[in-house]
Amino acid sequence: MRFICHRCGKEREGKELYCKNCGGYFVPDIEEKFNPDMKMNFPYIKNWITLGEGNTPLLYDDAIFKLEYLSPTLSYKDRGSLTLISSLVEHLKNKNIKRINEDSSGNAGASIAAYGARAGLDVHIYVPENANEFKIKLIESFGGKIHKIRGNRNDVTRAAMNAEGFFASHVLNPEFRDGMRMISYEIFRDLKDPLPRIFVPVSAGTLLLGLISGFKHLYDSNEIEKMPEIVAAQTDQVSPLCHAMKNEKYIPPEKITSVADALISTSPLLLDEMVNKMKDQECIIVKEQEIIEARNILLRKGISVEYSSAVAYAAFRKGNFSGENLIVLTGHGIKNI
Amino acid sequence: MRFICHRCGKEREGKELYCKNCGGYFVPDIEEKFNPDMKMNFPYIKNWITLGEGNTPLLYDDAIFKLEYLSPTLSYKDRGSLTLISSLVEHLKNKNIKRINEDSSGNAGASIAAYGARAGLDVHIYVPENANEFKIKLIESFGGKIHKIRGNRNDVTRAAMNAEGFFASHVLNPEFRDGMRMISYEIFRDLKDPLPRIFVPVSAGTLLLGLISGFKHLYDSNEIEKMPEIVAAQTDQVSPLCHAMKNEKYIPPEKITSVADALISTSPLLLDEMVNKMKDQECIIVKEQEIIEARNILLRKGISVEYSSAVAYAAFRKGNFSGENLIVLTGHGIKNI
Repeated sequence: MRFICHRCGKEREGKELYCKNCGGYFVPDIEEKFNPDMKMNFPYIKNWITLGEGNTPLLYDDAIFKLEYLSPTLSYKDRGSLTLISSLVEHLKNKNIKRINEDSSGNAGASIAAYGARAGLDVHIYVPENANEFKIKLIESFGGKIHKIRGNRNDVTRAAMNAEGFFASHVLNPEFRDGMRMISYEIFRDLKDPLPRIFVPVSAGTLLLGLISGFKHLYDSNEIEKMPEIVAAQTDQVSPLCHAMKNEKYIPPEKITSVADALISTSPLLLDEMVNKMKDQECIIVKEQEIIEARNILLRKGISVEYSSAVAYAAFRKGNFSGENLIVLTGHGIKNI
Repeated sequence: MRFICHRCGKEREGKELYCKNCGGYFVPDIEEKFNPDMKMNFPYIKNWITLGEGNTPLLYDDAIFKLEYLSPTLSYKDRGSLTLISSLVEHLKNKNIKRINEDSSGNAGASIAAYGARAGLDVHIYVPENANEFKIKLIESFGGKIHKIRGNRNDVTRAAMNAEGFFASHVLNPEFRDGMRMISYEIFRDLKDPLPRIFVPVSAGTLLLGLISGFKHLYDSNEIEKMPEIVAAQTDQVSPLCHAMKNEKYIPPEKITSVADALISTSPLLLDEMVNKMKDQECIIVKEQEIIEARNILLRKGISVEYSSAVAYAAFRKGNFSGENLIVLTGHGIKNI
């Protein structure tokens, strides 16, 4: 496998974040057949930097829940940190770089801080001035250094990008997204063909695109007869994908106040790629009250997820779907206590 | 298998908490051989009330870590709630009881609240007046009703015991402790004979006794040639077991101020049983500074545990143990952020 530019198809040369030809970002291109020895599907990783992630359980209820919140830092982001950090270790060693930078005040920041610590790296996380204090403490607990940046979200990204060291962006480095393929493989291993309908909350799109790429790999390898239906779930405040899929203009609110505080990408870099991959698929927008209700219903079943994860369950409930449905529950509810 | 009085050996008749003959508590008595189909070793459970617990990963470092914090409510208590609540459902239905009561302001309370919710029960948790607000919110998030009780720890227990409904005490109901056997079986399945030395933090003793009972079952079934070495770890504030094992008098402090806020049993009901089962085994007392240091070392490896779990790692580091060592990491560090 290799990574190629999503726009012009040029192969990535090293660890650059943008195509040297056209400035596009990179996506995976997999020629090898699916290998049931799962890790073999990630040939670019020689040395796995693990914290015990993966093999998350399935829980059966009115839908099948894939419990990604049972990950070391309590969110599915650990799937991406695993592959990104593992893929970086040798590169950074060769370049004599110890420091990595990342912009995220949320789950990705905590996850990168943990896996970075595991790899012995010096992790610096850039966050907006008003970032959540609890999540900052979580990042700092792993030894991550916090840099509070004044300005808008782009200013935060720019600061991380321009800092000394390697920019370990979870959006730009394709290895992060690529780690999500493992979730697809586990769903396939546990449920076999035909796969259920899959529900995921969508913000930056790393989970959605990674999952689709995993299912596509299974399809291209003749392991499944057809691609599963995918339902993307977004909030009415942050719904650029749902709008774009209908060719509608999306106008973000001045301030995002949703309880779903991990879904904040009003202008995701990967939007074109998402629209492209979601042809003939569905995107459902849920309202604040529906999110809160969905989370409460899950809690009353003993299942604790963060609001941003309940968004996918809310979409499932809203659509009245028949057949087998699987909802990826992405983050643990203790983060919203 | 059956449950018998730890003192006079009389068999438990139903779901009583104390022996009707001598007032003793109950312990498991297993005649059946170990069954590799793990759930079959719990014949008293017909209908498993699951939240996706179990099969926790092993992580290799300077010791082997068993990541019990990757449980639905983020602590090993879910092992016990699984077996206790599962074992109760039919009994409560037959008796037309919907309400269960439990005294715990900590991890056990949250766990019982979650599994109780999963079983459709009405869960009431009795806590001391000064109980931690975060943990109370966690219990309430699952629909658990909180009762704050004035007085000492015994007053809290008495209130839960005297309330209408079933007293789902995680200490008195032997099915809770018994759920810990599953951890022993998983360690055996993953590591085979000979087993490593096992380190556990000890407070009320449910984890310690449950684990030992699982290993004993494997030994009696000729699956392992000898019992593994067990090292109990306690804090210098709460160390009744370590003292009792050396026949020393233990005087609890007036107030427990340790960072290890889940280890608070200064006078554990199950102490005699623990001393009995820990003959020729070791108990290590660790100091406050050693706990904090141990937790920080784990965090710098990317491993987030609560202070009470770091107690076992601190004991491991203090003892300078050779050979293979396994530390049960009991609770997630996010609870101490």
